[in-house]
Amino acid sequence: VNIKELGEQGLLQRLQAFCPPGMIGDDAAMLAFPQGLELPESSLIVTTDLLVDQVHFSDRTTPAHAVGWRAVAANLSDLAAMGATPIALTVGLGLPGDTPVAWVEQVYQGMVDCLAKFGGQIVGGDLVRSPVRTLAITAFGQVDPAAVIRRSQAQVGDAILVTGYHGNSRAGLELLLHPEVGQHLLPVDRDRWIQSHQYPIPRFDVIHSLGQLLAIGASACQGWQTIAGMDSSDGLADAVLQLCRASRVGAELSYRHLPIDPALQHTFANRALEWCLYGGEDFELVLCLPPRVAHDLLARLIEVGSTGATIVGKVIPDPQVLLIDTQQQWPTQILRLEQGFQHFAT
Amino acid sequence: VNIKELGEQGLLQRLQAFCPPGMIGDDAAMLAFPQGLELPESSLIVTTDLLVDQVHFSDRTTPAHAVGWRAVAANLSDLAAMGATPIALTVGLGLPGDTPVAWVEQVYQGMVDCLAKFGGQIVGGDLVRSPVRTLAITAFGQVDPAAVIRRSQAQVGDAILVTGYHGNSRAGLELLLHPEVGQHLLPVDRDRWIQSHQYPIPRFDVIHSLGQLLAIGASACQGWQTIAGMDSSDGLADAVLQLCRASRVGAELSYRHLPIDPALQHTFANRALEWCLYGGEDFELVLCLPPRVAHDLLARLIEVGSTGATIVGKVIPDPQVLLIDTQQQWPTQILRLEQGFQHFAT
Repeated sequence: VNIKELGEQGLLQRLQAFCPPGMIGDDAAMLAFPQGLELPESSLIVTTDLLVDQVHFSDRTTPAHAVGWRAVAANLSDLAAMGATPIALTVGLGLPGDTPVAWVEQVYQGMVDCLAKFGGQIVGGDLVRSPVRTLAITAFGQVDPAAVIRRSQAQVGDAILVTGYHGNSRAGLELLLHPEVGQHLLPVDRDRWIQSHQYPIPRFDVIHSLGQLLAIGASACQGWQTIAGMDSSDGLADAVLQLCRASRVGAELSYRHLPIDPALQHTFANRALEWCLYGGEDFELVLCLPPRVAHDLLARLIEVGSTGATIVGKVIPDPQVLLIDTQQQWPTQILRLEQGFQHFAT
Repeated sequence: VNIKELGEQGLLQRLQAFCPPGMIGDDAAMLAFPQGLELPESSLIVTTDLLVDQVHFSDRTTPAHAVGWRAVAANLSDLAAMGATPIALTVGLGLPGDTPVAWVEQVYQGMVDCLAKFGGQIVGGDLVRSPVRTLAITAFGQVDPAAVIRRSQAQVGDAILVTGYHGNSRAGLELLLHPEVGQHLLPVDRDRWIQSHQYPIPRFDVIHSLGQLLAIGASACQGWQTIAGMDSSDGLADAVLQLCRASRVGAELSYRHLPIDPALQHTFANRALEWCLYGGEDFELVLCLPPRVAHDLLARLIEVGSTGATIVGKVIPDPQVLLIDTQQQWPTQILRLEQGFQHFAT
């Protein structure tokens, strides 16, 4: 049996047997320290990503500076998805000998620019020869263990809050791969979608607002709320399905509330819906919170002038994810993981 | 300019501009924590390695289980080289779709077996498609900041202590690449050298003995001694040269005290010397310590039945590394980095 036949989820399940229980399943791992190294008010969070030329980036769609930015942003987004803030990262680079030095330096500049904006610094790395350009990033962050966000903590009745638009990154990729598609678009739309693809923003602003909100709640003697969440790196549908699977619940999403950029809907019609659900790489947050907290968070995000967020649905006991049109113009759909991006499929 | 023309050292120098000063140069990085996350008696150490099929391993020389063991052992050896003990590691895997599932599972079994012996567990990872099998490992350890071993701390007059034999790993590789070379060898020699290549041992036993020794010294009111060191992953000559460069000193090595396995010397004659100095991947420790501490450590390692260690020379003020024959049969050689392994040379 090879891994293409087994599939990514199947292989992940096999490999979990080699890891401590509970360690795999979130966007990042919370480290259990041995004797003498416990941290009272802060736990260490770690996450790692491998990025491969022609799989995760290419000269055709991603200039070197954006390769570095995206690689770091993707890892920082995993920290944000755990409610953590960044401390440091390591960078492993595998490069063919004919790689231009300027390309490597621009990748580093992109990484450093992203870290300068969101926090953390490069503390180590490795440099090796490889037939294909490869980046291996490991990022560390810290979080108050009482405020850690996990996939497994969604509760029936929670509102599902999604930050930002979904599908814009996939649209940007389309315009980069097929520039002729963008010829008749408004430059402001075209540039926004390309920017979404090349320079994603990890949503620490949302984590910050949520932290303030929960601190107020906690000080009003209601205690900390348990929040479930993850980032939407593999698409909005994947995020909701993963959250539901980890929490053994289901979800009802409202077709009319899907976070699609109106210009995207107008320009790409049905493809906009597909990209919103399955496009991936928007690196936004998908959170499950008590409805009152979700509404407070929406209000606070508007207050601080953050880019939008939407309540797209709610958590239900029946363990499936339904996409429902409240106006009953569209039939109810059941979303499945298999429709999403499969890493070993091609 | 491409990176092959610039060379590994040149590229490393360019990339240091993007990292905080003092962070690059050791086998691993000691993490500086922001406010509220300082650890009083324990600092966090992090190290990362990228391993690529046909560059760092191949089916011809390394069964899957040994690929996993070596990858983890190399990272743990970097922790040992800082005086740290292991906590955890992350594993990024880049794999072609036709990779057998059994290969992946055996790699993981090798990693887990190495961790079971030396400490630490797998706490996270990433699984992606890649045209070439790639492993990205990041390991975390802890060390008492007062006892951290750095490359830059060698003092003129220090003894240079080397653990284990050097060149055995390179000899094992030779036997794996050219089995006909080993036909007339004693199986015990052949197996030992192949074992050295496939299953290297990170030298936490030496770190443990050194820690006990320094604790006794400190309690006798002499205070902690500052120890310089690194592992010999890129060869013995490279380790001594790197230590001297980082500490702005030189070294005198005794030709007659080079740690060459007598059977290796007997079997491979002149190649044994070359492999000892430049073979690499023995993952032993090269330490610079006050002569008295070096002799105490030698005595203690014999006491606990550890595999051998040798004092191969001393640190001198003149910033070059000399290989001297005290019996003056061989002319003095000046060792240089360029003779060692160059990652982008081929």
